[in-house]
Amino acid sequence: LYTMGIDIGSTASKCVILKDGKEIVSKSLVSVGAGTSGPSRAIAEVLENGGLKREDMAFVLATGYGRNSLEIADKQMSELSCHAHGAHFLFPNVHTVIDIGGQDAKVLHVGDDGNLVNFVMNDKCAAGTGRFLDVMARVLEVDVGDLAGLGAKSQVQVEISSTCTVFAESEVISQLAKGTDRCDIIDGIHRSVAGRVGGLARRVGVQPDVVMTGGVARNCGVLHALEKELNTEIQTSPLAQYNGALGAALFAFEKCR
Amino acid sequence: LYTMGIDIGSTASKCVILKDGKEIVSKSLVSVGAGTSGPSRAIAEVLENGGLKREDMAFVLATGYGRNSLEIADKQMSELSCHAHGAHFLFPNVHTVIDIGGQDAKVLHVGDDGNLVNFVMNDKCAAGTGRFLDVMARVLEVDVGDLAGLGAKSQVQVEISSTCTVFAESEVISQLAKGTDRCDIIDGIHRSVAGRVGGLARRVGVQPDVVMTGGVARNCGVLHALEKELNTEIQTSPLAQYNGALGAALFAFEKCR
Ligand code: SF4
Repeated sequence: LYTMGIDIGSTASKCVILKDGKEIVSKSLVSVGAGTSGPSRAIAEVLENGGLKREDMAFVLATGYGRNSLEIADKQMSELSCHAHGAHFLFPNVHTVIDIGGQDAKVLHVGDDGNLVNFVMNDKCAAGTGRFLDVMARVLEVDVGDLAGLGAKSQVQVEISSTCTVFAESEVISQLAKGTDRCDIIDGIHRSVAGRVGGLARRVGVQPDVVMTGGVARNCGVLHALEKELNTEIQTSPLAQYNGALGAALFAFEKCR
Repeated sequence: LYTMGIDIGSTASKCVILKDGKEIVSKSLVSVGAGTSGPSRAIAEVLENGGLKREDMAFVLATGYGRNSLEIADKQMSELSCHAHGAHFLFPNVHTVIDIGGQDAKVLHVGDDGNLVNFVMNDKCAAGTGRFLDVMARVLEVDVGDLAGLGAKSQVQVEISSTCTVFAESEVISQLAKGTDRCDIIDGIHRSVAGRVGGLARRVGVQPDVVMTGGVARNCGVLHALEKELNTEIQTSPLAQYNGALGAALFAFEKCR
């Protein structure tokens, strides 16, 4: 029995096909999201990768920001529940999911059964999201993917005291003008994101195991700063970016039983 | 009897000399603030304009962000009380002062006697401050001083739905890409600032007369949007930018009595 989960975000489209609700037989990721060709390309790819057809799918469940624009889906569901379920599949002892996306950040409290218990979310303020890092990378004239590596070379602790992206950007400009090492500034930026998201996490309560997901989880500088901020170990996995789609495929499987 | 008030902000230095706590005999404004030559230039100018010397001053009181770096001052005081006092001098029936500066916004509730009763302040978030307008003017490639005139030409109501400066900037870029008229976008920007500051004002309670001060008070687009937002008439005056220095000179006079 095959089920498909589709997660259409604002910046990426992801699909997962599960066999018997247990085994990932195929996955796909296209780096464009809702309102583009991304969703249909991701769906075509996941079927091709698995050597399967739409008719082979017992149930298709869509989640994410763009979930309502898909004809292929049998049902839609909120991404929060799907993320909780997906994280529980990958990390059976997870109780806290910290998801930092391109434009938002959320912290989920996941129950022992993998269901969502509680959450807090910031989607109104760019501070503590991937957008904060994008803005800083642009000012520093580095690629956002290079931030982690550069920040790791930091020797001196530099504080970025403003939380606000706009005011922090000015601080970074002044630091550059003063001749502060870019690596030290970047490390300060990572701690700024960790401080902001840490505040969010404390509001929901942090219980181990803690798992980090979302695009920013690939930046190990932010991950390590968050470990220090919350004084806890944080796990992640490259599969974590399929969390939402995986959770959707799991819910699809539950619908079939 | 002459008293001097000095207001050293982050972006400007202002001085006022009062005669007998009643009459403004001299004022000066230099467009650079704390940590520059601005303060000493403003002090030299205000004395020269009035044909007076330091020794003629019975009391000198400093206020504002940079108030503690001045040797000339007999005393320092918080700018909030000085602003309340200054506004009361200029507008005897004032009960609410809305001050939108370059990097912050505050709303003061002023008592019948001109003393500060209560206030709310935002100095953490660039939204609803002059910085928001600076960012938007840069994206729109217009001078910040031209915003009011352009916004007044708006024909169609355009909503800027994000409060956050960073997300609103992206909205403006999309609107420009869609070919939306710049004047309509600017009008939407003015309403965004008014919405944000209006929320602040409602927290303190809005009682007439309402007076607007700070650099952004010169933008009549924001002022009119705020009048609509709060459903009240709002007064301003070019002298309002000397509010802090004026209040300081008034407190200096009280010290002499
Ligand atoms: S604090 Fe800064 S980043 Fe956050 S909402 Fe305000 S303007 Fe945006």
